Amino acid sequence: MSIKIGILGYGNLGRGVECAIKQNPDMELVAVFTRRNPESLSILTKEASVCSISEAADWKDKIDVMILCGGSATDLPSQTPEFASMFNVVDSFDTHARIPEHFENVENAAKAAGKLGIISVGWDPGMFSLNRMYANAILPQGEDYTFWGKGVSQGHSDAIRRIEGVKDAKQYTIPVEAALQAVRNGENPQLSTREKHTRECFVVLEEGADAKKVEEAIKTMPNYFADYDTTVHFISEEELKKNHSGIPHGGFVLRSGVTGWDGEHKHLIEYSLKLDSNPEFTASVIVAYARAAYRLHKEGQTGCKTVFDIAPAYLSAKSGEELRAHML
Amino acid sequence: MSIKIGILGYGNLGRGVECAIKQNPDMELVAVFTRRNPESLSILTKEASVCSISEAADWKDKIDVMILCGGSATDLPSQTPEFASMFNVVDSFDTHARIPEHFENVENAAKAAGKLGIISVGWDPGMFSLNRMYANAILPQGEDYTFWGKGVSQGHSDAIRRIEGVKDAKQYTIPVEAALQAVRNGENPQLSTREKHTRECFVVLEEGADAKKVEEAIKTMPNYFADYDTTVHFISEEELKKNHSGIPHGGFVLRSGVTGWDGEHKHLIEYSLKLDSNPEFTASVIVAYARAAYRLHKEGQTGCKTVFDIAPAYLSAKSGEELRAHML
Repeated sequence: MSIKIGILGYGNLGRGVECAIKQNPDMELVAVFTRRNPESLSILTKEASVCSISEAADWKDKIDVMILCGGSATDLPSQTPEFASMFNVVDSFDTHARIPEHFENVENAAKAAGKLGIISVGWDPGMFSLNRMYANAILPQGEDYTFWGKGVSQGHSDAIRRIEGVKDAKQYTIPVEAALQAVRNGENPQLSTREKHTRECFVVLEEGADAKKVEEAIKTMPNYFADYDTTVHFISEEELKKNHSGIPHGGFVLRSGVTGWDGEHKHLIEYSLKLDSNPEFTASVIVAYARAAYRLHKEGQTGCKTVFDIAPAYLSAKSGEELRAHML
Repeated sequence: MSIKIGILGYGNLGRGVECAIKQNPDMELVAVFTRRNPESLSILTKEASVCSISEAADWKDKIDVMILCGGSATDLPSQTPEFASMFNVVDSFDTHARIPEHFENVENAAKAAGKLGIISVGWDPGMFSLNRMYANAILPQGEDYTFWGKGVSQGHSDAIRRIEGVKDAKQYTIPVEAALQAVRNGENPQLSTREKHTRECFVVLEEGADAKKVEEAIKTMPNYFADYDTTVHFISEEELKKNHSGIPHGGFVLRSGVTGWDGEHKHLIEYSLKLDSNPEFTASVIVAYARAAYRLHKEGQTGCKTVFDIAPAYLSAKSGEELRAHML
């Protein structure tokens, strides 16, 4: 019997979850829930239903885990607790500063309903967090470094698009190679924002817009660009479509630490991701944790969990015996 | 109240465990057990006792976790089950092929005694296994690659030392950069043994030994060297001591996989270690898992576990709240 999955929200992430389920024979997509008119939505999985979000409660007994694919700004803070009162849920809530509050809300809702929720699943938060945590536990004396990219930042691309005279834009976050190397060399550098990442922007102008003014507006934008070395390229709409329509991302988590009676030996732990599709990779992590949610709930566990609370074996379709024989 | 640790066996690994405990304020080394004459052993921790292995049973109620630092060939297969009937234990059993059998033995002994054992802790098996497992669960369609080095292989160094005419030797295992790059490029290469690693040997000859014969004996040794491109350097005893007395190691675990409805997007997950001291890093991993063994046993868990069965948060001295607020 396969694990029955529901998807709430059918954007890039929702579609990524649908694709990831296809790769996992022990799982089955049963329904996609949308705020749009269900008739207007065409999904890839022939066997699955498309329903209005308002019908979700009717599916309580037909879905083992509901995967919430909305945004962290406005959707998930209310959706995850709401749906955790009806379903086991997994979300990718990624507003780091608000995680403790979100955890509390989901914990209370899920506990009251006897359901299990796993929040902040993906790669950062998610796999990057796990690697930070493992590395810190292993090397208590050391320094942490996280670099992002090369990859598209949706938030920064949107910020450029809001500037007057800009028709479309894509922004890449790029780690500074020299900074990465200094960390890898065990130099434990103190790195400023500017020293860690550069920003590269590809901008399509509206007809008649002033390129100089737009470039100035980008480079001086507080928080988003002012603290970085930023490069701006003006390109045609065709060029943007042809060369910059992907959503790649990735990054590096490093911990540089010492061991020995007097800290005389250096060690470097490095974890990195190079992703052609940020949403599809995030979705793949989420689907593995949906398996964990299903199993943990079957064992009688309820409440809110994060990647820190879940033993790795719960993510794998393989049995304990298989894992010990072939992966240990 | 700190976690009380015992160490069985005071070689490189045992000393590494002692150093790692010093970095973890919630832990305390209470005793080192040895097969040697305890009087002859001088340890670094002033507050800890040195005892004969025959006295270990007297310490049953004074030690929370016993860390077994013997070898996998002859010590651990009998020691871990034996000590799991008296203590919570952690070992670094690394004979991959015999892990299922070792697991059974420790499971039975620990269950019967109401104790908890964690086996095969370190970096391979250990952190490398974890990374293989996580990456496989996230990207079910893909290929796994593990490269070791650059680092000293104790087994290969010993094999050289057994050749007639060899006074001393150190062997380095080195990953082939071109093979690593091919994997990173997403080429999913099929790699032969020879294509993945090279072997570099530093050899001190006995007086009057025939260098040519020794080199031939090394390069044609089945299993150890015959399948590899091997380089042999003859050096003086002083040079060996000066430049090759460390025990560095490390390596790379990669998974190259695809996502998307038709597998159209590529992804690379890479985990790597660069270690100045192989035994001290292994010891640092073990000590983090000793914390987990203590906590899990306090919760009432018994039997045998591996790194796959243990939720990451158990390794950290930080609370769930702290981890969520600062590491997620």
